[in-house]
Amino acid sequence: MSKGQKTRQRIIQEAAALFNTKGYAGSSVSDLLTATGLHKGGLYRHFESKEEIALQAFDYAWTLAWDTLQQAIDLNASPKLQLTQFFQAFCQHQEARVPGGCPLLNTAIEADDGNPALRQKAQEALQGWLSFLETLIRQGIESSELSATIAPQTTASCIIAMLEGAVMISCLSGSRAALEAASAFWLDWLDAQAAPA
Amino acid sequence: MSKGQKTRQRIIQEAAALFNTKGYAGSSVSDLLTATGLHKGGLYRHFESKEEIALQAFDYAWTLAWDTLQQAIDLNASPKLQLTQFFQAFCQHQEARVPGGCPLLNTAIEADDGNPALRQKAQEALQGWLSFLETLIRQGIESSELSATIAPQTTASCIIAMLEGAVMISCLSGSRAALEAASAFWLDWLDAQAAPA
Repeated sequence: MSKGQKTRQRIIQEAAALFNTKGYAGSSVSDLLTATGLHKGGLYRHFESKEEIALQAFDYAWTLAWDTLQQAIDLNASPKLQLTQFFQAFCQHQEARVPGGCPLLNTAIEADDGNPALRQKAQEALQGWLSFLETLIRQGIESSELSATIAPQTTASCIIAMLEGAVMISCLSGSRAALEAASAFWLDWLDAQAAPA
Repeated sequence: MSKGQKTRQRIIQEAAALFNTKGYAGSSVSDLLTATGLHKGGLYRHFESKEEIALQAFDYAWTLAWDTLQQAIDLNASPKLQLTQFFQAFCQHQEARVPGGCPLLNTAIEADDGNPALRQKAQEALQGWLSFLETLIRQGIESSELSATIAPQTTASCIIAMLEGAVMISCLSGSRAALEAASAFWLDWLDAQAAPA
């Protein structure tokens, strides 16, 4: 990696932590300069605008969160076991993410009423996550590990909703209890919904 | 109501919609002046700071959301029926709220990493909501309408988590599907968890 590429990468990493913690609107270019230790000219040598940085920073933060989850899942395991690993990992690996909570949640809330480019990034991240869970649930039904009465699409939506809401409650209350409750809820659900052997 | 009180109330209402839509950090004093049609002097005659307006605006937005929900619930009905009415109302009455989604969710995300006074408001709102659901679930267990295996506190947390996460998904996707899925999920759960007669 060239020196320029390294600086660019460092800006993205610092910006990801800053935007995820203080929000995009709540972070000024001056905050970015403080976080990166760069002068304005140094920053704008690598990026055209704060928005361009925000888009790259979202990709970085989301990829880190997604990869952390994926690494906890054995893709050769059965669909039900993969779901089990997913629910456990979502609760356990919050700290491995970019500081400031879930980048999807933060960006969704901030970008839902404006900022169309960032909003689209968040929509794509959500869609990818929904598809991942929907596919696992569908495979679990096909392999008879899960009850055929489960609706894959709406269940995937309910899972993500509860996990993301639990991140919000955990951040607000300063306690992991809501995250642990959500994780335990879906692990119990997995057991209860298992198709009869 | 005096003319001054009316102006004060109008500022709070306009600020609530503005902050709930664009966020507190994303809304400038200039945005507030545009929204209210006031000059700076007119605004600061009623409030000392943008933060003071934000605190009042949160109270207004949350009270409106809470009252809308409460009005849909027959407090003389059985605990299970009250929970049913609550799940239905949460999905149906989103439009009766201040524009921009759930004020608790928006404020929680924005205030979790700073802004301690606003954060405390959001914490109190969450606590009140958790207590309300926890009490209803406990009463439902006592009256044998709900299974004694349900843990009131963690279940209340999971309910709020899913509903708030569904608001996020609905706002991001521009569709009510996630809200309807979450509402249906908990209505099904209520039926399934009912104690045997």
